[in-house]
Amino acid sequence: MTRVTAQMSVSLDGFYAGPQHTGDGDWMESAESAKFFRITRWVTEGMAWRERQGFTGGERDTNSDVIAETFEAAGAYVMGRRMADGGEVPWGEEPPFRAPVFVVTHRPRQRVERRGGTSFTYVTDGVASAVEQARAAAGGKDVAVAGGGNLVRQVLRAGLLDELELHVVPVVLGTGLRLLDADLDLGEKEAIELDPIRVIPTPEVTHIRYAVRGRAPLVLDDRGSGGGPTRVGG
Amino acid sequence: MTRVTAQMSVSLDGFYAGPQHTGDGDWMESAESAKFFRITRWVTEGMAWRERQGFTGGERDTNSDVIAETFEAAGAYVMGRRMADGGEVPWGEEPPFRAPVFVVTHRPRQRVERRGGTSFTYVTDGVASAVEQARAAAGGKDVAVAGGGNLVRQVLRAGLLDELELHVVPVVLGTGLRLLDADLDLGEKEAIELDPIRVIPTPEVTHIRYAVRGRAPLVLDDRGSGGGPTRVGG
Repeated sequence: MTRVTAQMSVSLDGFYAGPQHTGDGDWMESAESAKFFRITRWVTEGMAWRERQGFTGGERDTNSDVIAETFEAAGAYVMGRRMADGGEVPWGEEPPFRAPVFVVTHRPRQRVERRGGTSFTYVTDGVASAVEQARAAAGGKDVAVAGGGNLVRQVLRAGLLDELELHVVPVVLGTGLRLLDADLDLGEKEAIELDPIRVIPTPEVTHIRYAVRGRAPLVLDDRGSGGGPTRVGG
Repeated sequence: MTRVTAQMSVSLDGFYAGPQHTGDGDWMESAESAKFFRITRWVTEGMAWRERQGFTGGERDTNSDVIAETFEAAGAYVMGRRMADGGEVPWGEEPPFRAPVFVVTHRPRQRVERRGGTSFTYVTDGVASAVEQARAAAGGKDVAVAGGGNLVRQVLRAGLLDELELHVVPVVLGTGLRLLDADLDLGEKEAIELDPIRVIPTPEVTHIRYAVRGRAPLVLDDRGSGGGPTRVGG
């Protein structure tokens, strides 16, 4: 059955890139890219990613297997416009997706066909529509929300996400683009509950996959009568 | 050898409590407490915590073992003033620490002795001094930075922390007090690097212990020549 999944590499403090680069300077020299490169280093060092990208080398290890599995599971992708535009040059004529990609955007653009099975369809009627179109195109495989963070949040907020896998990189970045930020639109006594369904530890990154249960109210537990709050070990 | 350790329960989005309660209303009814209770639920359900707190019941399980180990490893504690004051009533005459606690504060207060080996010494000359006093009192065991988040950040920022254990609770809170926030004072191309040295997955919480390597510059990897950035799987 098709699941809607998302996976993002994030720092220990929840960032997937540095502060958004907006000036005229070179993105490659920006704080956004410096932090983005640190967070995705484990991906670019993985053989499975390098093969899809047309690069040689890389490690055939647990991290590479996680990348390969992620590519393999996806029958279609949903992607934000900024990511799609940013990837257009580096991904080249044969992008690594090898599946239909549905780009959520406000600016219409003609569908683009690339070699190797990748296409980009620009969807202007919202994220739910893009997810539905991807579901129809996924051939029973998963719909992978490829990013960026803003789109992952939109899908999560809309209750459309079945699974979220975080690749937690052991680094603290301090500032930047945060995957899970305040625009999730949660009430002050409301949360999104998840279940961790798989944890794969490696020295470079901790892979944690969650099933999304959904929104739930926060309720007081027995500390209301049996005692008071303590932060010991907490 | 004495290590300086910290452990905090955090949500998937890095919060350890809701937005700080500042009004005149009941803290127990606040958004701060509602989110704090959700994050620390796994602790209060653990038999090892309940025993120390004088409560009956609880689960004797992996999570309880992690709590027991955390208590056992600590020869002395360092704590922020807000946490110490907030805990004074609920911890009562026999607090769960059973070790000297050094409270970092700007407001002097006489040392307090409690039953069971717990004492509170109020340190007004800074966090480094509190850590040193705790180290001298720890008898070769670890110095545990018990919280709150502000104090953990101060110790991390000052380069005094050897190990950080995050108990990652599978819930997204959206807003609140964030453990790792912008006041870590990192440069825009600088990071704090860590090594994950132990991961214990349970359904309720993922325990990840990191050794802190320290500050390091962020450098461009081979994507500068071999290709461009991609966010695939990243």
